[in-house]
Amino acid sequence: MISDYKHQMLPMEKVLRDPIHNYIYIQHQVILDLINTREFQRLRRIRQLGVANYVFHGAEHSRFTHSVGVYEITRKICDLFQRNYPSKEKGDGLWNDDERLVALCAALLHDVGHGAYSHTFEHIFHTNHEKMTTEIITSSHSEVNAVLRKVAPDFPEKVASVIEKSYPNPQVVQMISSQIDADRMDYLLRDSYFTGTNYGTFDLTRILRVMKPYSDGISFDMSGMHAVEDYIVSRFQMYQQVYFHPVSRSIEVILSHLLKRAKYLYKNGKTNCLGPTNLLFPFFEGDFSLSDYLKLDDGVLNSYFSLWQDSDDKILSDLADRFLNRKPFKSVRVSEDTRYLLPTLRKLVADAGFDSEYYTATNDSFDLPYDTYSPSQNKHRTQIELMQKDGLLVELSQVSNLVAAISGKVSGDERFFFPKEMKSSEQQLELFGPIYSEFQSYLKNDTLIKK
Amino acid sequence: MISDYKHQMLPMEKVLRDPIHNYIYIQHQVILDLINTREFQRLRRIRQLGVANYVFHGAEHSRFTHSVGVYEITRKICDLFQRNYPSKEKGDGLWNDDERLVALCAALLHDVGHGAYSHTFEHIFHTNHEKMTTEIITSSHSEVNAVLRKVAPDFPEKVASVIEKSYPNPQVVQMISSQIDADRMDYLLRDSYFTGTNYGTFDLTRILRVMKPYSDGISFDMSGMHAVEDYIVSRFQMYQQVYFHPVSRSIEVILSHLLKRAKYLYKNGKTNCLGPTNLLFPFFEGDFSLSDYLKLDDGVLNSYFSLWQDSDDKILSDLADRFLNRKPFKSVRVSEDTRYLLPTLRKLVADAGFDSEYYTATNDSFDLPYDTYSPSQNKHRTQIELMQKDGLLVELSQVSNLVAAISGKVSGDERFFFPKEMKSSEQQLELFGPIYSEFQSYLKNDTLIKK
Amino acid sequence: MISDYKHQMLPMEKVLRDPIHNYIYIQHQVILDLINTREFQRLRRIRQLGVANYVFHGAEHSRFTHSVGVYEITRKICDLFQRNYPSKEKGDGLWNDDERLVALCAALLHDVGHGAYSHTFEHIFHTNHEKMTTEIITSSHSEVNAVLRKVAPDFPEKVASVIEKSYPNPQVVQMISSQIDADRMDYLLRDSYFTGTNYGTFDLTRILRVMKPYSDGISFDMSGMHAVEDYIVSRFQMYQQVYFHPVSRSIEVILSHLLKRAKYLYKNGKTNCLGPTNLLFPFFEGDFSLSDYLKLDDGVLNSYFSLWQDSDDKILSDLADRFLNRKPFKSVRVSEDTRYLLPTLRKLVADAGFDSEYYTATNDSFDLPYDTYSPSQNKHRTQIELMQKDGLLVELSQVSNLVAAISGKVSGDERFFFPKEMKSSEQQLELFGPIYSEFQSYLKNDTLIKK
Amino acid sequence: MISDYKHQMLPMEKVLRDPIHNYIYIQHQVILDLINTREFQRLRRIRQLGVANYVFHGAEHSRFTHSVGVYEITRKICDLFQRNYPSKEKGDGLWNDDERLVALCAALLHDVGHGAYSHTFEHIFHTNHEKMTTEIITSSHSEVNAVLRKVAPDFPEKVASVIEKSYPNPQVVQMISSQIDADRMDYLLRDSYFTGTNYGTFDLTRILRVMKPYSDGISFDMSGMHAVEDYIVSRFQMYQQVYFHPVSRSIEVILSHLLKRAKYLYKNGKTNCLGPTNLLFPFFEGDFSLSDYLKLDDGVLNSYFSLWQDSDDKILSDLADRFLNRKPFKSVRVSEDTRYLLPTLRKLVADAGFDSEYYTATNDSFDLPYDTYSPSQNKHRTQIELMQKDGLLVELSQVSNLVAAISGKVSGDERFFFPKEMKSSEQQLELFGPIYSEFQSYLKNDTLIKK
Repeated sequence: MISDYKHQMLPMEKVLRDPIHNYIYIQHQVILDLINTREFQRLRRIRQLGVANYVFHGAEHSRFTHSVGVYEITRKICDLFQRNYPSKEKGDGLWNDDERLVALCAALLHDVGHGAYSHTFEHIFHTNHEKMTTEIITSSHSEVNAVLRKVAPDFPEKVASVIEKSYPNPQVVQMISSQIDADRMDYLLRDSYFTGTNYGTFDLTRILRVMKPYSDGISFDMSGMHAVEDYIVSRFQMYQQVYFHPVSRSIEVILSHLLKRAKYLYKNGKTNCLGPTNLLFPFFEGDFSLSDYLKLDDGVLNSYFSLWQDSDDKILSDLADRFLNRKPFKSVRVSEDTRYLLPTLRKLVADAGFDSEYYTATNDSFDLPYDTYSPSQNKHRTQIELMQKDGLLVELSQVSNLVAAISGKVSGDERFFFPKEMKSSEQQLELFGPIYSEFQSYLKNDTLIKK
Repeated sequence: MISDYKHQMLPMEKVLRDPIHNYIYIQHQVILDLINTREFQRLRRIRQLGVANYVFHGAEHSRFTHSVGVYEITRKICDLFQRNYPSKEKGDGLWNDDERLVALCAALLHDVGHGAYSHTFEHIFHTNHEKMTTEIITSSHSEVNAVLRKVAPDFPEKVASVIEKSYPNPQVVQMISSQIDADRMDYLLRDSYFTGTNYGTFDLTRILRVMKPYSDGISFDMSGMHAVEDYIVSRFQMYQQVYFHPVSRSIEVILSHLLKRAKYLYKNGKTNCLGPTNLLFPFFEGDFSLSDYLKLDDGVLNSYFSLWQDSDDKILSDLADRFLNRKPFKSVRVSEDTRYLLPTLRKLVADAGFDSEYYTATNDSFDLPYDTYSPSQNKHRTQIELMQKDGLLVELSQVSNLVAAISGKVSGDERFFFPKEMKSSEQQLELFGPIYSEFQSYLKNDTLIKK
Repeated sequence: MISDYKHQMLPMEKVLRDPIHNYIYIQHQVILDLINTREFQRLRRIRQLGVANYVFHGAEHSRFTHSVGVYEITRKICDLFQRNYPSKEKGDGLWNDDERLVALCAALLHDVGHGAYSHTFEHIFHTNHEKMTTEIITSSHSEVNAVLRKVAPDFPEKVASVIEKSYPNPQVVQMISSQIDADRMDYLLRDSYFTGTNYGTFDLTRILRVMKPYSDGISFDMSGMHAVEDYIVSRFQMYQQVYFHPVSRSIEVILSHLLKRAKYLYKNGKTNCLGPTNLLFPFFEGDFSLSDYLKLDDGVLNSYFSLWQDSDDKILSDLADRFLNRKPFKSVRVSEDTRYLLPTLRKLVADAGFDSEYYTATNDSFDLPYDTYSPSQNKHRTQIELMQKDGLLVELSQVSNLVAAISGKVSGDERFFFPKEMKSSEQQLELFGPIYSEFQSYLKNDTLIKK
Repeated sequence: MISDYKHQMLPMEKVLRDPIHNYIYIQHQVILDLINTREFQRLRRIRQLGVANYVFHGAEHSRFTHSVGVYEITRKICDLFQRNYPSKEKGDGLWNDDERLVALCAALLHDVGHGAYSHTFEHIFHTNHEKMTTEIITSSHSEVNAVLRKVAPDFPEKVASVIEKSYPNPQVVQMISSQIDADRMDYLLRDSYFTGTNYGTFDLTRILRVMKPYSDGISFDMSGMHAVEDYIVSRFQMYQQVYFHPVSRSIEVILSHLLKRAKYLYKNGKTNCLGPTNLLFPFFEGDFSLSDYLKLDDGVLNSYFSLWQDSDDKILSDLADRFLNRKPFKSVRVSEDTRYLLPTLRKLVADAGFDSEYYTATNDSFDLPYDTYSPSQNKHRTQIELMQKDGLLVELSQVSNLVAAISGKVSGDERFFFPKEMKSSEQQLELFGPIYSEFQSYLKNDTLIKK
């Protein structure tokens, strides 16, 4: 019974309409059952891009849509590998289609542990969405685990090990996590579509066609070099233009301070300022279960923030208002040379009546757009290998000027955030006019300057 | 001071990136201030298509995005009218650009009174989003009203009257509400984009170009007949394919029954089954304020449903589970001829152990894709008029076979909804096998049949 | 050797980049060899839409691009049929993949006999592109035939019979020619793309997915009804908006008269007025070989027209100028009621100094957007059949209001064409002022009227 | 009369449907009249990308479509400049709308002197499309000149001087020719659309919005840096992927050799091998008039090549066949290190029976994707300047890593071309087997290698 489940195909494949891939094809009963679990359906209530929709209002798509997209790209890779590079004998470095189901499940579930406003939330409450993903997959309390267990008793651990990159077959691992994987390819295309920018577009069909399994993972035919290059550049541009947008980061700063303030109030016994927001209490305590974690989503947090708007704690209510009603902080770029000025600026903000712990922040957003292998790094990345006609591999940045230009270099900037009020220009009328005026003398061309 | 506000333009126009219109151009300080009100920002937390994302997973866009889109189309119409058909003297039937601001504000705010899961919610709690729109605009307690009042003391009422169609200038009214208005044009394009279907696409640029103001409203140059025809057909197809989708309607049925059950429990004193969901209590009571109304959004309701999953009331918890975790009812088409069978089917559902009040429903979704003027109808529609070279008007369905084919005819169907369990095929193993079997004998080709 | 050729697959499939289908996949050596024949390469020099680019300037695509597109859609249908409906035993009405190669070749070659400005050319010179297609395929003088013969001696005839609809397997025939076939689906999407209109778009992926082979040909799953409906409506709209465009037809009228005049001059011994345009002489004579036919393409004709601009024959040179330099005739719609006025109008044109045989024309463009089977018609069409869950077929217009509305009705109009000069408004200055004035009194709202 | 012509606007603006810009808006009578000249209409018969359609079959668009596209982008720039940066007084560095007409005419006509297969043709016959553009504009024999003269007697020279970059207003010059001008922006988008690749896409709307006139030309607001960067990268990728495609270059090599052979035959008195291709004779002679030049287009040349397929000269007929029927040469990359091997390879080709003058070639395609100002270069480029909030300018590559990476570096490669036969693998069967075999020993991974 159970052993059959692994191979149980739907009598008619089911399709989901998807703006990125046109249709998503569900063929295994296992995949359909996983989608129907409550842990997976919960992803409908968590936005893929957190607060980015405050800047790009179309970016309201959920992690659910991204997860089925990653599944679909992985399914396509398996189809192409099986058609073009089927393994004939063990160890020939080609594709063994028995790996398909574990790859598809890992693709579908790779983000199942994400919570509401993941990155900010994790920062304040020390949760970890990757650990939660593993726990959802392997804990006997989840519906996801129950489905996977029906395939085989050790199947949940197998799926988890793919996501954790410890699965022995590097082809399966690299499909889901590498510098050019189903995850990244889906989110670039999807975020690009929903934000309405076109920076993230690249030729997915071509990249899939030039993928080639080999003994150490997945390589790319040299003829597809430009398509791969274009993908790397697109990714770089999405980071520059969308993911590192200063206003998004400003909203995240407010969210972070809001949660920090709530935790502070709880820790200091001022629960009356927090109202009936008890689903957060385990996190304030630092002691939560999987079940506690799964109860949270964007809607729950937002409804708490809505309550906090009426809190007696002025900082909490003000930050909740700024967050929900989109009143971002302003920011300027900070460099090595000007970082020493930050205490001065913080003091000016405090002088203008703002608690500088909650009303200022520095935040750096950096990313490596692409990196080659470096033995010294503790968390090294799988570099992108191109396969020549004669079978030899060449690392991407060796043949692409554009990729070489951004390879191994961090991109992004460090910014100082402060209340919009500090840029007020109606100085004559205001009590804090001179303070504002001095503060502004440090700002020029979106950058912090020495006077 | 106040009189200036009306004409206060932003020093640099602001743009919002939008996947449908590419950019949305904010030029008036008034419009920027309206967008920044809490009532308008709240629209970010209400999905445009309610539960349609359970079928078309991309359709997670909010009423915020639609509202700014309607604004943008209206802005474009004003620009074209002002460039091509500026009024030279009172009564010449051309465009008076003094109407621009009232048109833009009405466009932006036309949906500001929508609440979470509007249509279902209204059905159960007798709220009315159109009245709420008016109230938000005219009540002195709203931020929206405060902004509008700064333009002129009677400006809020003017804006409201456009939305209520009582504003004297028919051109302004028809921009926002007619059979081919900025509202419909935006939602067709937007819903089409986010669902990933292409039924709703039509040539917006061309339709805008052939719009012509005249004394009784807005007509369309005869040369644009086919573009207008294509819009009507697109709208018809979106209704058939997306808005009337049986699975969406099934989820709505579950939502409706869930809210009905909660109200029943409240009314019968079983508030302990409802948990701390007190923001809904005024609605259970049937006595709510604007402030109560504005506290609700999709996230608040969803977080309540999440609590209800653990309710002691089995019906409430089961329906909440079916809703949140997407377990739609099944349905069949019902016709005049087979409607008499519904009591029999309901009885079978009850026999199988389901409370038929909460586990069955009939639901009809009908719409008039296009209608011509009919004096007998109490809520008649503005028909679409095409202007010939000699200035004479011809009603659209007179010259378009396609439009004539669907004009004045309701489209849609009536369906009977029931739990998926009733279609179970593993009859031998189940207690209710024979009941299921009899039930299924009434179903064929997605339709209710006589045996 | 020869027998192998049929199954010879390319070691690596070749792809052609295509804006409509993204990539076109060439897998058989036979297909690659056919594309490389001179008869097929010649299609690069013949525009798909004849003169439509004079109205929609982007529509400069050739019959080559369309032909590979039809091939690609057919290939996709074969893949889907083979995966989902493979025949198990003779006569089960499912797909026999041995038919794949004949289907692919027929798809690729279905238009190979088209000549320059086909429809107009055929009208004047009594050529027939369908007969030429058969001849190219079956004549031993063509490279196409040489390739096909390598598959099997009777293979050319088989391929030709598919295109002529006499091939015994109705599934293969209907793939290439029916009311919803690979040919039409490609040209609607392609013409829509290159003209830059969006009327011709429909959901190709979905239509392909719901296609089902059965014993009498190809049916469509009922679940795809709306996609099929949308295709029919799109086709109708492309005819109305693009293919029947009055200005294109006017250019065709000029082209037709230009060729007629050249033939007249030749027949009357005035070859000196024609210059060295001898590739046309066999056609003037009405006695041409396949080789003569294949020497003509758009470029050859255009270069002749270019010479004719300097001809001593004033009519020839004027019409050549009007054609090459885009000086279309004007036109008005003619109805049953006003057709009797045409002699009067022709006389006025003659009075104004134009030879009315060459400077006026009536032209009707009519099409049946969709038709059901009718035994009385001599050239009846294959109606579109939808398959219900229980296997019964329903004809499309029975379930679609929109299709019923345009089914069996001709669409299009009859127009009278005349020189633009007749609409001159500077009457005072011109000799023919009063004639122009009288002529114009018959025209109103783009229509011929009784005074 | 004449003076009015300059300001004569069309009573209703005319629109051309365009796949790239949706609509192209014609507002001035002058522009409409220019489009209707025979010199401009002739551009319909000259493909924008020469032979690229042999690789990307969709790329069949003409220079006509590109020319109206450049006009449209220029029109949009003028509109934005006039709305946002109208000059208030002479010398303020802002936009003077009196420059609009000269800018629009120059944009429309900038490529009017292109001939059939321009670059190759020029190489063999020492024509120059830029000089021909000037001549068409300024010669009193052209219809274009007649239209322009109606504006003002010196207007033709003004328009020509814009194209020649000697016009005094640098804003007008840079609109049409600079590193980011209407010409390049249109062709990248257009070539990308018609080839079906997406490398050339960038955010045109955003780039237009951030353009700012200043005293020395056109700068870009710093906020648009990423959009400009994306444009430069897109351009680089189009060169790498489309414009430098080895197969296109191979077809150009064949074309070049074909024309060279024809000229050789003519010069050596073998006109009988050339047939009645007398429109080329003035070019063989090196003595041609404007009128001779305007008689040529792609169709004329192709029809000559078609005749040459039957020539008694074997080289001419073979090259004509290879060109028309798409039989490209093969090629390998050549480096500094391996260039010394070319004589050896040429000799092997000759030994295999091919005239190496006509059957081999080296061809390098190099381009500077972006360049900064360098006083040493004789043909220096206008660098791209970004304007900061405080008005100071920064050159693009100073702030963009990606642009810096490709700035000032030539991209492209040098290749050696030879007949496909040299790569034959059926060596045993062939007379030249050993020669082929030795030849092939120099080729590896698409590159010329030392053995």
